[in-house]
Order: sequence, then structure tokens, then C-alpha cells
Amino acid sequence: MHGAGERALGVHRVLEPAGVLPQAAHRLDADPAIGPDEVRISVQRLNLDAASFRQLSESCGGDGQAVRAAVLEIVRSRGKMQNPVTGSGGMLIGVVDAVGPESPLGLQVGQRVATLVSLTLTPLRITDGLARWDGRSEQVPAEGTAILFARSIAAVLPDDLPDAVSLAVLDVCGAPAATARVVEQTAAKSVVVIGAAGKSGSLSLAAARAAGATELTGLVRDDTEAAALRASGLADRVVIADATDPLAVAAAVGTPADVTVVCVDVPGAEHGAVLATSDGGTVVFFSMATSFSAAALGAEGMAADVTMLVGNGYTPGHADLALELYRSTPGVRALIDPRVHE
Amino acid sequence: MHGAGERALGVHRVLEPAGVLPQAAHRLDADPAIGPDEVRISVQRLNLDAASFRQLSESCGGDGQAVRAAVLEIVRSRGKMQNPVTGSGGMLIGVVDAVGPESPLGLQVGQRVATLVSLTLTPLRITDGLARWDGRSEQVPAEGTAILFARSIAAVLPDDLPDAVSLAVLDVCGAPAATARVVEQTAAKSVVVIGAAGKSGSLSLAAARAAGATELTGLVRDDTEAAALRASGLADRVVIADATDPLAVAAAVGTPADVTVVCVDVPGAEHGAVLATSDGGTVVFFSMATSFSAAALGAEGMAADVTMLVGNGYTPGHADLALELYRSTPGVRALIDPRVHE
Repeated sequence: MHGAGERALGVHRVLEPAGVLPQAAHRLDADPAIGPDEVRISVQRLNLDAASFRQLSESCGGDGQAVRAAVLEIVRSRGKMQNPVTGSGGMLIGVVDAVGPESPLGLQVGQRVATLVSLTLTPLRITDGLARWDGRSEQVPAEGTAILFARSIAAVLPDDLPDAVSLAVLDVCGAPAATARVVEQTAAKSVVVIGAAGKSGSLSLAAARAAGATELTGLVRDDTEAAALRASGLADRVVIADATDPLAVAAAVGTPADVTVVCVDVPGAEHGAVLATSDGGTVVFFSMATSFSAAALGAEGMAADVTMLVGNGYTPGHADLALELYRSTPGVRALIDPRVHE
Repeated sequence: MHGAGERALGVHRVLEPAGVLPQAAHRLDADPAIGPDEVRISVQRLNLDAASFRQLSESCGGDGQAVRAAVLEIVRSRGKMQNPVTGSGGMLIGVVDAVGPESPLGLQVGQRVATLVSLTLTPLRITDGLARWDGRSEQVPAEGTAILFARSIAAVLPDDLPDAVSLAVLDVCGAPAATARVVEQTAAKSVVVIGAAGKSGSLSLAAARAAGATELTGLVRDDTEAAALRASGLADRVVIADATDPLAVAAAVGTPADVTVVCVDVPGAEHGAVLATSDGGTVVFFSMATSFSAAALGAEGMAADVTMLVGNGYTPGHADLALELYRSTPGVRALIDPRVHE
């Protein structure tokens, strides 16, 4: 027997090893029959994590059929799409197929949704052999079923946006939500976004503005990005520096900011972010390349009294906020649209 | 020329590669002649980082003379004691020897101090060949000079405590300071400390109590630690669980807390800490074994709306707070004293 808290996390779907959370499990039960608090999704497309797809493709020598076979075997043997080498998964799109009477997710049969929890913890069964996929793209047309738990997250795909745009925005929706919350809670006026011309960076700038910040600095890596960011109008000031060079970041930023948001996906951005932040200020790390010890020891070594946050991908309302910022902010659309490939 | 900000960080002491911060440098200038904003320490003892000493000792097959020679060679060639394999350093004790007229550290010649910034960024020269050290302990009697920058941190060693006690307390003084700040800022009532019977754990419990928390839970790993923690009176409730088993932690804690402080130095404590924390609550990670991605992806995967903080080793006043908690709290002394070996 599992308690309600464990059920909500999907522990009842773990086949082995017993007693771990679904993300840590070697194998999940992907039975399409749902429990009273579960939701079944009729899968339409998987979006494999980029690192996972790259690893699979390289290990198969670029042979698309071999990649397809590898993905099918992972899903068959594990009951979920979690690359055993990279440990990563991705997300999926589908249609709500059945909703248990006790599901708290508020979904209705027939809604098109994207799952915002990782494929690494989502019970998944593939029924079409991925016949429509050539194994050469991380976008995988698929038929099958996926299960959401009580504590899962799914966003209803909006009718007014192409799927590819919605996915691109939802993929990074934690960053603007966390930025908005920190700016509001600390009444921050000055904000630096490192990696400001990307998806999460542009949304974070827009979120900071909407939350009341009035001095927005966007840090980018080169003239091309600087020109695009300037044209977007999202930042009050655009500066260029290598995010991994702490002194260059500090020099480019000048007066340290109340809040610094790190959106570049490269290792080594921790110390520059600390130096860009004023005493008593806050750094929000949204890069998965962040090193915990580099952040902790770096701030100590520089006697920097800054609050450092591990960017949590989940904040209530994060999906709606990000989609609304995309719709309402021409500058965000100008930066994100060129990055979206259907 | 270096700007005042760069000088304060010690960039002018970096010999190679140019333009990096002292911690990242291969080689520092350890010249004992100080600049106007620097402080010179007459070294009495080095405390090597435990991981560093273990690596050196193992690589030398436990030969103390070889370990001594290795440390001397590192300091001679690098101008600092930074183990090139582990990347770690340690701290030192000494007497303030000279204070530049523009130093902001408030130190006076003749004061005995411990440096609270890492040896990995401290210019160091050894003058006695470490003749009084047998190479068999991480406590290294030494003569020589060390340099503090404007943005360094040193704590004056109190007269009323043995050095070994002061060092043990100062080594973890960031944890109680950060705990106190979070409890105050969020007006938290319930606090869970994971790894509560250790140095940082016991101090964090005492700090949480002093900051106004009223429901303190200490989580420990076995009956021996539980008995010691109960006897100390620091926690209102003592529970036993493997910190790396998320469901066991959640079951042991029961109702999630406003604030959870992670003080166990083992990998894999992230998800249990998230589950121990209520929606809207805060997790403070003080373990250097914390994985940034495990924390970020774990919270997202569990749809947990928790704020997660990278424990910053520096908070203004952290040394005085920790020493005062030690002096004023019999339960802290009861837990720390058996861990102190002169």
C-alpha cells in the first residue's frame, strides 16, 4: 500500500527498484489503465531532450533506423523515455484521453496538452513502432499512451499559437515566473539577465519589467546578439561580455544589480553572476550547467553577501505567464520566433 | 592597472593566467610586501581541507615526508595551497603582522585570526620548510606569510575558547547565519534540519530557535545520533531516516516544514529535502555534495513550489553569531565538543 502522498508522486508505478521515486526508477509500470487520481494522455509527439538525442544519434553513427530502434527499446524496457547514458528525457504532446475522478490537475478529455514534467518520470507506452519518425530529429511523431500523476504538471496548448512556439515557450517557462517572483518579493529595481537574447533570457527580461523592475540590463556574447536584443527593446541597456569571464562580466555590468538572472547554458558563469550582483542582492541560476560548489565557494571567497537561488522549473502559473508574455511582448516574439523550427 | 574592485578581489596578485580571479589562478604572487588595502598574516598553522589531505596522503602511500614535500612544492610553485587534484585548500591561523592604511577589514597588528576565505585564493609563502609537521595530520604547524585582500574575511580568534573549538565552529559558520536569516525573513515556525547532530546541523538548530522558529525537527541517520541529539535538547522532535531516501525522509518528517536545512555531506539528499518542505517553503542546501540539477529537476518533477537556496558560506556577522551560539547553548557544545580534536 502507498499513502496518498506517495501515490501523488507516482511511487505506485515504480516496478524496480522498490521505494524510489519514478525519476530514479529503472522501470515503471506503463499500464494504460489509470488509477482514480491519474490522467491518461493519447500521445502525439515526443520532444527528446537535445542532449539525449545527440548521444543516441552519435552512438548509432547517425543511422536513423538504429536511433529509432534504440528509443523503442528504452521505452519498452523502462516504461519511460529516459536515456540511460545522459539520464535525460524530454517532454510530450498529446490529447487528454481519460481523467480519473480524483485527479487534481483540472484537465478535461479532448484537451491538447504538453507535459511539463520530464519524460524521465512519465509512464509511457508506444504503440506505432514510431513508424512515422526517421530517427533524424528530436521531434518524434508517436502514438501511444502516457500517464500523469496527481503531482504532475501539464499545460493546455493554446489554440492561437503554433505548437512549436508553445513548446519553445513552455520549455523555459520556469525562468520568467521565478524572475517575476524574485523581483516582486525584493522590490528590485535593477536586473541583469546574463544570456538575455535567448528564449529564457528574453522572457525573463519581459517578466522583470512586468514585475516592476525599471533598470534592465541584458548581457549577451557578441554583436549579433546585441543588435537583436537592442532591436527588441526588452532591455534598457545591452552589454557584451563572455559570461564565463567574471571580471569581464563585472566590467560590462558596472554598478551591480539588485537581481541577476543566469540564462546561459555554459559552465563557469557563477562568479561573474555574483560580481554582477549588489550586496544584499539575489542571483537566480537557471542554467543546468551551474555548479553548486562553484557558486557557494565563489560567493564565500569574494565575501559576497548575495542570496543565490536554484532556479526551480516549477512555479504555480508559470506556463500561463510565459505564454502571455510571449503574446503581449513584440520584443519577446522577435527573439524567440527565429529560434522556433516546426 | 587594476580597478579598485579588481584589486579588492586580489586580481593584482594573479601571475597566470592573466585576468582570472585568484581562486582560478594557476599561480599567485605571494610577495610579503603588502599593498595599501592588504593585510599580512604571520602564519602559525594551516588546516588542510580533509579531501585534499586524504588525496595527498594516499598518493604518497601514507609517507609523511613525501606528503610534506608535496605540500611545500604546491605552495612554492603556485603561491597558494590549492591541491591541483581536488582543487580544494583549507584555512589558516596566524597573527596579524601588518595592515595597509586602506584595508577595510578592521584588523589590528597582533590579533590572532583565522582566515575564513579558502587557502585556494590566499597568497602564501612558507619559510620553515614545515619542519614541525610530520605529514600525518591535516593540522600543519607552519611559519610564513599570507596575504588578505580588501574583500577577504578573517575572524579574530576569541580568547575564551580553544583554537580547535573556534576552528570547528568557524568552519561551518555560514550555515547558522543563513538559517537565521531565512527563518527571520520568512517568519518560519517549523524547521527541519537534515543531518542535525553534526557541527553545522546543531548550530543551525540553535540559530533557528534564536531566530524565532518554534517547531524544530532534527533528522539523523541512526539511534546513536538520535540519542545524542535528544540529550542536547536542541530539537523539539528527533526522527531517524536515510537522508538519501526521499520517501523515508518524507515519512519520517510527516507534515512538511516551512524551512528545511540540508547539512549532510552525502550526495542524493536533494529530493528528500524538497519533500520535507511545504509548498511556499524554503530549502537551504549547505552540503557541498548537493547536485544543482538534481535539486532543480527534482523540484520541477514533483511540482514542488519551494524556494531553494545555494548555501552561501558568507553572511555578514556569521563568525560572531556561530561563536556566540556555541558559548550560549549547552546543547551545541555537547554535540560539537566530542568532534573537536586538538
